[in-house]
Amino acid sequence: MKTLIYGVTVITANAAFDVIPNGAVAFENGVITYVGPTPDEKARAAYDEVLDGRGGVVLPGLINTHCHAAMALLRGYADDLPLQAWLEEKMWPLEARFTAEHVRWGSLLAIAEMLKTGTTTFVDMYDHMDEVARNVEETGIRAVLCRGVIGLCPREVQVAKLEEAKAFARAWRGAADGRITTMMAPHAPYTCPPDYIREIVDAAAELDVPVHIHLSETAREVEQNVRDYGVRPVEHLRRLGVFDRPTLVAHAVHLTDEEIAILAEHGVKVSHNPGSNLKLASGIAPVPKLLAKGVTVSLGTDSAASNNNLDLFEEMRLAALLHKGHTQDPLAVPAAEALKMATIYGADAVFQRDRIGSLEVGKRADLVLLDTRAPHWHPHYDPVSHVVYAARASDVRRVYVDGRLVVENGVCLTIDEERVRYEASRLAAELTGRSLF
Amino acid sequence: MKTLIYGVTVITANAAFDVIPNGAVAFENGVITYVGPTPDEKARAAYDEVLDGRGGVVLPGLINTHCHAAMALLRGYADDLPLQAWLEEKMWPLEARFTAEHVRWGSLLAIAEMLKTGTTTFVDMYDHMDEVARNVEETGIRAVLCRGVIGLCPREVQVAKLEEAKAFARAWRGAADGRITTMMAPHAPYTCPPDYIREIVDAAAELDVPVHIHLSETAREVEQNVRDYGVRPVEHLRRLGVFDRPTLVAHAVHLTDEEIAILAEHGVKVSHNPGSNLKLASGIAPVPKLLAKGVTVSLGTDSAASNNNLDLFEEMRLAALLHKGHTQDPLAVPAAEALKMATIYGADAVFQRDRIGSLEVGKRADLVLLDTRAPHWHPHYDPVSHVVYAARASDVRRVYVDGRLVVENGVCLTIDEERVRYEASRLAAELTGRSLF
Repeated sequence: MKTLIYGVTVITANAAFDVIPNGAVAFENGVITYVGPTPDEKARAAYDEVLDGRGGVVLPGLINTHCHAAMALLRGYADDLPLQAWLEEKMWPLEARFTAEHVRWGSLLAIAEMLKTGTTTFVDMYDHMDEVARNVEETGIRAVLCRGVIGLCPREVQVAKLEEAKAFARAWRGAADGRITTMMAPHAPYTCPPDYIREIVDAAAELDVPVHIHLSETAREVEQNVRDYGVRPVEHLRRLGVFDRPTLVAHAVHLTDEEIAILAEHGVKVSHNPGSNLKLASGIAPVPKLLAKGVTVSLGTDSAASNNNLDLFEEMRLAALLHKGHTQDPLAVPAAEALKMATIYGADAVFQRDRIGSLEVGKRADLVLLDTRAPHWHPHYDPVSHVVYAARASDVRRVYVDGRLVVENGVCLTIDEERVRYEASRLAAELTGRSLF
Repeated sequence: MKTLIYGVTVITANAAFDVIPNGAVAFENGVITYVGPTPDEKARAAYDEVLDGRGGVVLPGLINTHCHAAMALLRGYADDLPLQAWLEEKMWPLEARFTAEHVRWGSLLAIAEMLKTGTTTFVDMYDHMDEVARNVEETGIRAVLCRGVIGLCPREVQVAKLEEAKAFARAWRGAADGRITTMMAPHAPYTCPPDYIREIVDAAAELDVPVHIHLSETAREVEQNVRDYGVRPVEHLRRLGVFDRPTLVAHAVHLTDEEIAILAEHGVKVSHNPGSNLKLASGIAPVPKLLAKGVTVSLGTDSAASNNNLDLFEEMRLAALLHKGHTQDPLAVPAAEALKMATIYGADAVFQRDRIGSLEVGKRADLVLLDTRAPHWHPHYDPVSHVVYAARASDVRRVYVDGRLVVENGVCLTIDEERVRYEASRLAAELTGRSLF
């Protein structure tokens, strides 16, 4: 089926960052076939499905490059605690009791939220990943999935986890018509012994998939790395050969100029998680410096337990606002740069720049149509400024992934949201023993 | 008419910060008559209007303590510029051409946005304030209004502006059934000569209204104050007797510990504007220190030209997140504190703690009903956490001001939104010569 959306302002996020007034986007079999001015009436008649989007803005589907989707089940369960108490007393004891069922419904809750807020691709690092992959398959979202591996355990458990991660990466790579890709994920330098990281990276090389790892989220883990290994985490990972593979690191809050140079030199991609970093009081990542050195900086929400939502419009705005205030430079992270971080840089960060992240002929048809009628959209001076500084996720009217309509007028067409609410609430109450409001 | 909303989680924001599960709020003639558990069916029958709000959360109407509403006409007109270029080349030349008509439609656009996003009271400092006051009267919102006075002008203009500000403050004080109160507003220490500030403060004393003033928004104006007057702005204003009047200062970004002590000693109220301060790269206000010293810190959006929306849910979340990350203290500005900043501390900041800012019997019936069905609200562990960390303004289902229903299901009942969009767009295009998207 050939679909055309016309009469819209198209934010392409292509290399020239073209914004097309009264533009149109067409796609067929999941692939974008046209991006340009609105065709005349006669040309429009050649399409099977024609959508008059006048007044709307179309942008590429947003890309969330760091998430632990299933933790949506713990959203708001504990906040405003010192990090270690939050982790050790609240998160870890409950996560240890997570079964496949928790991951199934927790990640489905997260996917419903992501789709409805315009996210069409997400990176997920967690356990029971078959459940997440099946949800991705069924809901129509795109995902880059990895079984996160923590290596602080006996050797036989290490081996079992690594085998599981490899089997998962192999089995699901390219699944769901290519919507699923996979990575290998040593959890972090402070949770994986060096030799184990080496093994995981070797497996990534063998499978030819990228590596995803947490890096320097807190000052404490950097100090620990220096204490344990005599070097800071970036040099540590470099020596372990991690950066010889395509690598996406999450957080990258505490970096020296030398570390930024190493990341740049190796083409390491960064997932910046401003909401989570602020909420957990981890600090403020040196994003303007990273961008200035040519490092790809994308955006992630981290989990809903530390955010507490999965809304990339918020992360875009935070990224654009935070670094201006923090560096007292009003030119830090302009609107267009923040929008790129959520789109084309996100595609870069998951090594799929040729497939997603911008509206260009030949790319997959992942796109979001925004309604611009609300007061906060007026006057209509600059669509890019408004998307970043004024819009809300509730402005999302339609979401397409691979050319398939998955959200329409605030309703997710591929998920039984009432069932998800019911199951998530049931599991949350059972797991925590709390009565819900 | 006696109205009852039952079956809701009530966040009272009272002194004990009570949160009532399966609660109810009733009001009559604009005054809250009941806050407590849901009455039984028989008791419910005594009300004229009974609303089943099951699954919803009710909180006090939000209070925006610093705004220049009419500047909504310049939302997104210019961003990502150095502050002085933004002001001198973009904002001021256009604002100089603002007529009463621009203020009428610009402020109405802003009021529509504020009401729909749960704001029931706003502080406004601008020119052509009769237009704003009439809009407040007609739309049903509550407001604290002042004619902002810049004194860098010939003496006769100074005198005329002061007379206008006094006449406005006198004429509209207590208008619209008490929904409008007024203040006197010397714009800032750097835009008003000292003697002129004294005159304005004397007028405030004569009229018995509070003073509203910008304070130490940028490092540059602090330096200028030291250069021009030999002291920093807080000591400067103290010496001029400003703080002998009830005073609300906006921004308060650049403060020493000594200045914080002076503000605390004089009961000066602060309007914290995190979104605007970040966007204009002004810096990050020392909010945790202010709160620790007992200073009332409320929340403001500033204008939509520097924010770029008027959404207090965003400011609440920013206030809760930003200071944690900036101070690397996860206990800085907990969720409840951020919610108080947007409600009861806001009432304090406008010297109306006895009338608004919390849901308590005898207070004016300004309240917001939130829909909690969206995925980002699940699981339902903690309503306060969710309001601050996960909610969006689009969750607002109903807004009452003075007991009058002004927003229902995302529609503002007291404003012709289509007309506002039309007029705002027309004026914006004429004013700027730009074609809108």
